[in-house]
Amino acid sequence: MVILGVDPGIARCGWGVITMVNGQWSMVNSGCIETSPKKSQEQRLKEIYSQLSKIIKRYKPDSLAIEELYFGNNSKTAMVVGEARGIILLVAAENGLQVSVYTPLQVKLALTGFGGAEKPQVAQMVKTILKLEKLPKLDDTTDALAIALTHAFSSKLSKQISSS
Amino acid sequence: MVILGVDPGIARCGWGVITMVNGQWSMVNSGCIETSPKKSQEQRLKEIYSQLSKIIKRYKPDSLAIEELYFGNNSKTAMVVGEARGIILLVAAENGLQVSVYTPLQVKLALTGFGGAEKPQVAQMVKTILKLEKLPKLDDTTDALAIALTHAFSSKLSKQISSS
Repeated sequence: MVILGVDPGIARCGWGVITMVNGQWSMVNSGCIETSPKKSQEQRLKEIYSQLSKIIKRYKPDSLAIEELYFGNNSKTAMVVGEARGIILLVAAENGLQVSVYTPLQVKLALTGFGGAEKPQVAQMVKTILKLEKLPKLDDTTDALAIALTHAFSSKLSKQISSS
Repeated sequence: MVILGVDPGIARCGWGVITMVNGQWSMVNSGCIETSPKKSQEQRLKEIYSQLSKIIKRYKPDSLAIEELYFGNNSKTAMVVGEARGIILLVAAENGLQVSVYTPLQVKLALTGFGGAEKPQVAQMVKTILKLEKLPKLDDTTDALAIALTHAFSSKLSKQISSS
C-alpha cells in the first residue's frame, strides 16, 4: 500500500509518500509545494492543483490522508485554508482516491501514544519510524509524513479489529 | 462583455451569465449546481468543478465575479464554503479568467443604491434590470446574477472614472 499524506496550505502545502517495505513503513519521497504571495490566489491554487496531480500520477498512492484543521474563531484563515483543501479533495476525487481525515489528537496518539505530545516529539517519531537520516527542511513536510503514518497505523488497526 | 457571477456553496452553487445587448444588460442563462449530501465532499467538489468548467466553455465569459462571504466566528462553515470557493478560483485560473470579489454591501449599493437594502429588494432590482418575467427558483441563482450585475456596474464605473 502506498499512502500520500498532505498538510493543506496555500503558501506551503506539505506532502509525503510512504509505503511498506519488508514489513516496515518507509518514505518514498516528500516535499512541499510552495506558492508565491506575489501571485493571485487563483494562480496559487492552480499551482497546487497541477503539482499535486503530478505527484499522484508519479507515485500512484492507494489512499490520501489529510489533517483536520481547527481555526477557532478565525473564519478568515479557515476560508483560505479551505480553498487549498478543496483543491486537494478535487485532485483526490479525480484520481479515484479515498480521503481519510485525522485530527491533530489522532496524529499525536498514533505516533507517540500520548495525546499531549508536542510537535518536536511527533517529528522525532516520524524520523525514527521512517528511519530518516534527518528531518525534512520544512515542518509542513514532516506534518504530511506524520499524517500518512497515522493513516498507515489506523488502517492496520482497523484491519486487525475487523479480522479478529 | 460577458460576465459570469457565481454564488459559492457546496450544496447549491448559483451561477448567472449576463451580457450587454443594445446598451442594456441582459441575462444569457443562469442556474444552480446542486450536489447531493449523500455524496462525499470530494465527489461534490468534483461535480462543481466539472459543471462550472462546462458553463465557462459554453458561455465563454470575459470575467468572473464572486461574493466575498463572511462567517463571523463560524470557522467550520467558512472552511466548507472555502473548499467550494477554491474550486471556483481554480476553474477561473484554468480558463484565464480574472476574478473580481464583491462584498454584500457593494452588491446592495450597486443594485439599489442603498447599503441597508434587504434581500428581496436586491432580487427585485435583478428582475427589473435584466427584464426577467420572473425571478429564478432559487435564491442562489438570483444572488449570482446580482453579483454579475455588480461587476457590470463597477466595471462601467471604473471605466468612466479612468476615461474622465
